[in-house]
Amino acid sequence: MSATPTTSIALPPLANDSFLRACLRLPTEHTPVWLMRQAGRYLPEYRATRDKAGSFMGLATNKEAACEVTLQPLDRYALDAAILFSDILTVPDAMGLGLSFAAGEGPKFASPVRDEAAVAKLAVPDMGKLQYVFDAVSTIRKALSDEQGVGRVPLIGFSGSPWTLACYMVEGGGSDDYRLVKTLMYQRPDLMHRILAVNADSVALYLNTQIEAGAQAVMVFDSWGGVLADGAFQAFSLAYTQRVLSQLKREHNGLRIPHIVFTKGGGLWLSEIADSGADVVGLDWTVNLGRARAQVGDRVTLQGNLDPNVLFANPEQIREQVIRTLDSYGKPSAGSGHVFNLGHGISQFTPPAHVSVLVDTVHEHSRAQRA
Amino acid sequence: MSATPTTSIALPPLANDSFLRACLRLPTEHTPVWLMRQAGRYLPEYRATRDKAGSFMGLATNKEAACEVTLQPLDRYALDAAILFSDILTVPDAMGLGLSFAAGEGPKFASPVRDEAAVAKLAVPDMGKLQYVFDAVSTIRKALSDEQGVGRVPLIGFSGSPWTLACYMVEGGGSDDYRLVKTLMYQRPDLMHRILAVNADSVALYLNTQIEAGAQAVMVFDSWGGVLADGAFQAFSLAYTQRVLSQLKREHNGLRIPHIVFTKGGGLWLSEIADSGADVVGLDWTVNLGRARAQVGDRVTLQGNLDPNVLFANPEQIREQVIRTLDSYGKPSAGSGHVFNLGHGISQFTPPAHVSVLVDTVHEHSRAQRA
Repeated sequence: MSATPTTSIALPPLANDSFLRACLRLPTEHTPVWLMRQAGRYLPEYRATRDKAGSFMGLATNKEAACEVTLQPLDRYALDAAILFSDILTVPDAMGLGLSFAAGEGPKFASPVRDEAAVAKLAVPDMGKLQYVFDAVSTIRKALSDEQGVGRVPLIGFSGSPWTLACYMVEGGGSDDYRLVKTLMYQRPDLMHRILAVNADSVALYLNTQIEAGAQAVMVFDSWGGVLADGAFQAFSLAYTQRVLSQLKREHNGLRIPHIVFTKGGGLWLSEIADSGADVVGLDWTVNLGRARAQVGDRVTLQGNLDPNVLFANPEQIREQVIRTLDSYGKPSAGSGHVFNLGHGISQFTPPAHVSVLVDTVHEHSRAQRA
Repeated sequence: MSATPTTSIALPPLANDSFLRACLRLPTEHTPVWLMRQAGRYLPEYRATRDKAGSFMGLATNKEAACEVTLQPLDRYALDAAILFSDILTVPDAMGLGLSFAAGEGPKFASPVRDEAAVAKLAVPDMGKLQYVFDAVSTIRKALSDEQGVGRVPLIGFSGSPWTLACYMVEGGGSDDYRLVKTLMYQRPDLMHRILAVNADSVALYLNTQIEAGAQAVMVFDSWGGVLADGAFQAFSLAYTQRVLSQLKREHNGLRIPHIVFTKGGGLWLSEIADSGADVVGLDWTVNLGRARAQVGDRVTLQGNLDPNVLFANPEQIREQVIRTLDSYGKPSAGSGHVFNLGHGISQFTPPAHVSVLVDTVHEHSRAQRA
């Protein structure tokens, strides 16, 4: 919101730069807010666009349609960031594993990676196969810009984490016990490390190419890091997230690009994740934001962490829970930062009007906190 | 293992009392071990008995069959405790909600509790409807005893926690987002508190009646406490687990009955759970046992916490992971206690021979730690 950065960190020209500022622990006039899966099935306009595109991947691979759904929630709500509409599994699909989405089911890979031969064949994919993603990024960036090249809000690019991609690649789809991927991990750690190394280098290249295409911040979704045992998390998830982070561009065209890491169920490892090199650490709703802030100090900005199910309560109750979350973090002080979000993706059953209550309460109450 | 208790705590006559001693932080010659769901589908003899009984509930409601499957793992492995074969959902079934298990699916309730009228009808059930459970307890106790009345190992009774029962009662079965139960909780906390109060008083009565029937320790499975937000966990799960614990018999016939609480995904709240009044706190594999021990000090014994998927690795790798877990807790010292277990129920796909490796390694290595 502030036109004059208070430090020498260079930010892009934006009508609303509160999200980037909070990511970098610069002062903001309000706590910025965006929602994981904000472009999604709970919006009737999203469902209409998806129906025209024929399928989820039809939508993700059509830059105009992906741009359209990315912007839909911004037109309804006063969100402080846009996030690329895409899937976390585009990278293994580009590796040739054959991603598909059966109706009513989760993602499936036609060629799961379960043995030495399949692992040996893995390689960092040709980014040309992911051109549809980069085209979507640049199309969205253009659509967000006014005639002077000033963006409405920043655009976030993203990828699944190396471990989370590996879960899907080995299981061949979703899982409730992670038996196959953990069996490979415990039985053949050499193969698992090889998968994760290829994934990390692929994700780093993928995110850097998103940055070159116009992404102004990037996020690594470690959706399944929390299913790992203590010790295994550090060795098989966090180490490879760090391998991604260490390769990511911190600047592009002289502008600072914040890096966000979100490990669902990773609250017990917060301190280690905060030392990973990320600018922002996402938290799910099991974490006490005040305690988390005390734990990480000024190392990172925290992002989160309302339970998405709060959005099924009535408006007054939603207001109370949003205020409780903001008060739990407390008033941002010099060098600290909070980005409001849910602790996981928004539910497809969410009443759209309830999202306005959330977004407006975040802005109102966080301004009041600063007053 | 010790025939002469070193304190004035009275324990039952047992050939192997290491489990009860560890629960009460008394010295033991080895770290005792049992496995959640140790009587289960991974054992061919279990599947044979279940097939004779016709179904899971057919098995649970037949005291002879329930006794048979409870003892099966003790005949294969040098386990230090038996656990009643039953289901966590017997209590809401006795409340009249109509529990069933469709083939290949999880539990279902015919009459889920979703509105004011359904909540108003809830009451602590007549324990006569759960007589089959108490009959199974006394049958198992008899089968565990020799002619002098000395038991092989202690028998653990159990129940679901008030919150975990409420999840199933409101959702009507399993869930992956807990949308219905959380909607009720956020929207109508008055109704949720009423359900939980009835559940807590029912669970307390149920466990006390198991104790009277012969259970020598009791465990509350808060399987779904970990899905709650910080704040909601304390108000809607832990408060009602404490309401159960505060009503439980600590002694029966002059003998001390340890109380165990296990909240899957509760690692962030360990300190609060350790203050709940339980003797033992169960931990899943995401928790670092050494850090947990440092956190709880001498307040409680810790139970856990190997990832069940380790049992899919090869024997040498299983040994390494078991030793790693024991070393993570460290050598038990005066006033501390560790009960080895998995961090969740054993998988139905586990090779039975691998369980021997786990149990034998726990005994060997924990004796070596003490030497």
